[in-house]
Amino acid sequence: MLPFTNQPVGQLFDETLPNPFSIPSAMTHPLFSKHEDSLQKALAAIETRGYWSPFAEMPSPKVYGETANADGEAAFRAHLNRTFDIDQPTNGNTVGSESSPFGLPLAIRYPQSTPAALIEAAASAQRAWRDAGPTAWVGVSLEILERINRASFEIGYAVMHTTGQAFMMAFQAGGPHAQDRALEAVAYAWDQLRRVPADAHWEKPQGKNPPLAMRKRFTVVPRGTGLVLGCCTFPTWNGYPGLFADLATGNTVIVKPHPGAILPLAVTVRIARGVLREAGFDPNVITLLATEPNDGELVQQLALRAEIKLIDFTGSTQNGTWLEHHAHQAQVFTEKAGVNQIVIDSVDDIKAAARNIAFSLALYSGQMCTAPQNIYVPRTGIRTTEGTLTFDAVAQALAAAVEKLLADPSKAVELLGAVQNDGVMQRIDEARKLGRILVDSKALEHPAFANARVRTPLVLQLDAATDHAQFTKEWFGPISFVIATDSTEQSLELAARTAVEHGALTLSVYSTDDLVLEAAHETSLRGGVALSINLTGGVFVNQSAAFSDFHGTGANPAANAALTDAAFVANRFRVVQSRIHVEPKAVAA
Amino acid sequence: MLPFTNQPVGQLFDETLPNPFSIPSAMTHPLFSKHEDSLQKALAAIETRGYWSPFAEMPSPKVYGETANADGEAAFRAHLNRTFDIDQPTNGNTVGSESSPFGLPLAIRYPQSTPAALIEAAASAQRAWRDAGPTAWVGVSLEILERINRASFEIGYAVMHTTGQAFMMAFQAGGPHAQDRALEAVAYAWDQLRRVPADAHWEKPQGKNPPLAMRKRFTVVPRGTGLVLGCCTFPTWNGYPGLFADLATGNTVIVKPHPGAILPLAVTVRIARGVLREAGFDPNVITLLATEPNDGELVQQLALRAEIKLIDFTGSTQNGTWLEHHAHQAQVFTEKAGVNQIVIDSVDDIKAAARNIAFSLALYSGQMCTAPQNIYVPRTGIRTTEGTLTFDAVAQALAAAVEKLLADPSKAVELLGAVQNDGVMQRIDEARKLGRILVDSKALEHPAFANARVRTPLVLQLDAATDHAQFTKEWFGPISFVIATDSTEQSLELAARTAVEHGALTLSVYSTDDLVLEAAHETSLRGGVALSINLTGGVFVNQSAAFSDFHGTGANPAANAALTDAAFVANRFRVVQSRIHVEPKAVAA
Repeated sequence: MLPFTNQPVGQLFDETLPNPFSIPSAMTHPLFSKHEDSLQKALAAIETRGYWSPFAEMPSPKVYGETANADGEAAFRAHLNRTFDIDQPTNGNTVGSESSPFGLPLAIRYPQSTPAALIEAAASAQRAWRDAGPTAWVGVSLEILERINRASFEIGYAVMHTTGQAFMMAFQAGGPHAQDRALEAVAYAWDQLRRVPADAHWEKPQGKNPPLAMRKRFTVVPRGTGLVLGCCTFPTWNGYPGLFADLATGNTVIVKPHPGAILPLAVTVRIARGVLREAGFDPNVITLLATEPNDGELVQQLALRAEIKLIDFTGSTQNGTWLEHHAHQAQVFTEKAGVNQIVIDSVDDIKAAARNIAFSLALYSGQMCTAPQNIYVPRTGIRTTEGTLTFDAVAQALAAAVEKLLADPSKAVELLGAVQNDGVMQRIDEARKLGRILVDSKALEHPAFANARVRTPLVLQLDAATDHAQFTKEWFGPISFVIATDSTEQSLELAARTAVEHGALTLSVYSTDDLVLEAAHETSLRGGVALSINLTGGVFVNQSAAFSDFHGTGANPAANAALTDAAFVANRFRVVQSRIHVEPKAVAA
Repeated sequence: MLPFTNQPVGQLFDETLPNPFSIPSAMTHPLFSKHEDSLQKALAAIETRGYWSPFAEMPSPKVYGETANADGEAAFRAHLNRTFDIDQPTNGNTVGSESSPFGLPLAIRYPQSTPAALIEAAASAQRAWRDAGPTAWVGVSLEILERINRASFEIGYAVMHTTGQAFMMAFQAGGPHAQDRALEAVAYAWDQLRRVPADAHWEKPQGKNPPLAMRKRFTVVPRGTGLVLGCCTFPTWNGYPGLFADLATGNTVIVKPHPGAILPLAVTVRIARGVLREAGFDPNVITLLATEPNDGELVQQLALRAEIKLIDFTGSTQNGTWLEHHAHQAQVFTEKAGVNQIVIDSVDDIKAAARNIAFSLALYSGQMCTAPQNIYVPRTGIRTTEGTLTFDAVAQALAAAVEKLLADPSKAVELLGAVQNDGVMQRIDEARKLGRILVDSKALEHPAFANARVRTPLVLQLDAATDHAQFTKEWFGPISFVIATDSTEQSLELAARTAVEHGALTLSVYSTDDLVLEAAHETSLRGGVALSINLTGGVFVNQSAAFSDFHGTGANPAANAALTDAAFVANRFRVVQSRIHVEPKAVAA
């Protein structure tokens, strides 16, 4: 165990006291010691939230090995056209109907497990895992992460061909960035776990009588079994924080991937099981529940089981709200839909701003929970260093930037990736009818994947006065609106109200006026939404850096938690105490 | 602001950077500085959870002043037969129907407020309170506590004549012990708040290109308005942790006392409002909602209001579960019913054990959420140093200890206090029919209060084989059962299962066998319930010491939270960030 910060020197803690319990006190697990250095760095990072990234984000042969890419792709391809190899309780059937947005035939099947069998398996695994204690939970979690990092290429290709992300993004967001988020969750978990003293000597003065003295023992106990419900766009990035927060606090975990993106989490679970087995634990501490798209009812039944004490969900508002309203037996963490917004008030350089915004609209075809949708521009135009720019000129600048960014299809596909599912395709068609089209969505041919479903962003012009009902709901996908408002004041008011009522993960403002920035800051506090100011360079509003940016706040309907903070982890374990009389020290001395 | 522990020396934090925001960064509030020393001691205490108590528990003239008792009683009596003086929004009517369990006529009325008016008042007060920041929230909270401590006698008499606690207990549990719990909650809140850096410099290397650099600002924002729903037995002890956790994290608070115990919280709220006003804040940061017993529907409507983001409840399982299942917009903390249990396996000295248990049964007539109800004894008897003691002998020893403890009525009333309400009286009558009576409940005359409702404990003999349905529910009040079991193994199994299914705050075991103690420890982990071992001296299972004992675990149905741990506070605030590009330092250097 790490020493507690600022602990008075041995004052209230005495290892020489007889231990009245026969279970030995927890010792540091070897895997904890092995990874303690990186854990310490992670703890320092979450205290300052400056830049830190332990897992290399570039798919560089120097870091990952000369053959890592080829090996990873081969490992990915070895999963195709067969049943995934994972030795957990199964009923003998198989499930699985993933399809690659790039058109690559997958035909991967997974052993089918019943929720009841996985709950039973978790219950059997729980006791020894619980008794292993915090350093084992954290050490095993960190070892799993190291192994996952080595599989970054395999997981990258798996993410690419389930989510539709272009490879570079799939590698980074699905690999090292997701691993960073996972380590961040483990660090926050440990930061809370280490605050619980294992033991205490309590001695209460009784005037002239001998003091009352007790030895107390505090045991961290997990909540039970956690259920991680993955999404189809960022299965690892959004799934890992809950998964690792659960593991690092001693819970068992059932991972239920989105039926459209099973493979990345299946590979993850298999690696985790391997580490658990090697460390002498029942691998059923973590299991995979692969499902078909029509298995929703089965998942709902599982989510209400008394044994499920924690649920981490990323997905639709409908499903997330259902869990919040029905799974009373569990602590439910949700990330749901939201409406991300940009307020343009004034700029130094409209081209730089438009370039940055266009990138955010194009990246992964807007299929990011952080991608902007509403761009508010005063109908009277905006101030720039070269005089006033009309609303139409701003709208045109944005449209031109999108078109220029995607002018070369072979480069464009590396930014856009592919559209994850037909729902997004249909939404693009539906959105076309909403207003004047500034940039139409086009199909692009992918040079490497003839059947890839590639679409460029659709940008429409709307008006705050008439189109409120449309732009205050989420149009998930490459769909955005340049919205004419009466003023920046109205833009900010709309931004705050939309965040409060409909949720938002990001808010972006462009202004050269300090008073407007101050008002935007107040808007972000009211809306409970992260604010980015005057992004014109190499940082984009959709990006959220582990160890520095909080992803989500929990303060508006888009998410009831943040990745990652103390509130995300502190409720995943409980403390049970014992106390027994001992000889007072004041008398013995 | 306190320095963050272990923060790397200025590495990622540079005060010389231009602040792009015009709101000045938070400065330490004077009330924070004033109380920083005691806050630091509280932080040290929660790290070790050894003995610490900042507020003197003895009602000593040396500590509280020569005239403190007389002044406090006079202050209490000044509230009788009039309308309580509190200048908050009111509709002009008055409410209130408290009655003293000691028979003292109270006739206290309180200004009636509508929930809507209090929510509106809280909303008006919120912005300036929010902007004041963590050191103001914590500083003001600590100042309020200091003032409350000075009013300990007034509050003690108010607790006595609403709850029925004898004066010494009312003073201690309702005064300094409740204040200790409040300070503990503030310390846990600050311990989490101080972990959020106010500001960060983020600088990401870009190979040969200049690094990307951003300045980030992290603002702690409260959740909104907290609702504290008090109970009629420990209005301050159970109400303060949530109340002060809310205030210390920047929330506004509406305090809705139990209609049977309004005065202690009314005095508390008035003191808090005074401190807020003096510190320049709108006193409506905290308001009182006094109600009549038939106002339940009004309270339910309030609990579902969108503005109510936090609810702290102590009371019946029915009401607590209703809140958990319906108030989806709020974070709900509940303490509900439970069945506390004692497992007797073997003892050195049955008299010492029985004396200790009898005290726990008698204290405040068993009207403590921590009081034991089920006492499991093997029907084959128990081992003692003087040979085997039959089941009947154990039951008789317990009965004799209760009778001996309460033999002198004038001393007994100081231990028993009075019965809070008619429900408890009826329950005693109902319980009499359940089994063989070992000790019958008697009415005692109170030498000072002729109309006091004083009852001694009822102790019955039941059998695990036949009476399961009866003893697995809570019989709140001076009602306990000596239950014959097949073995200690069965006793422990019953204890675990009852805790898991019906909730429990305390578990007590008597055994001279290390293997049994180990099994009892496992029982406590399974049941998620605090364990006391072989209590035969001056510590009783009902007692829970702030800064050392966790009250409740959140791990069984008796409570979904513990007083006080990180999970109790971490979800009461959110962090909203802003980020803006700045010049990279790596280039500037």
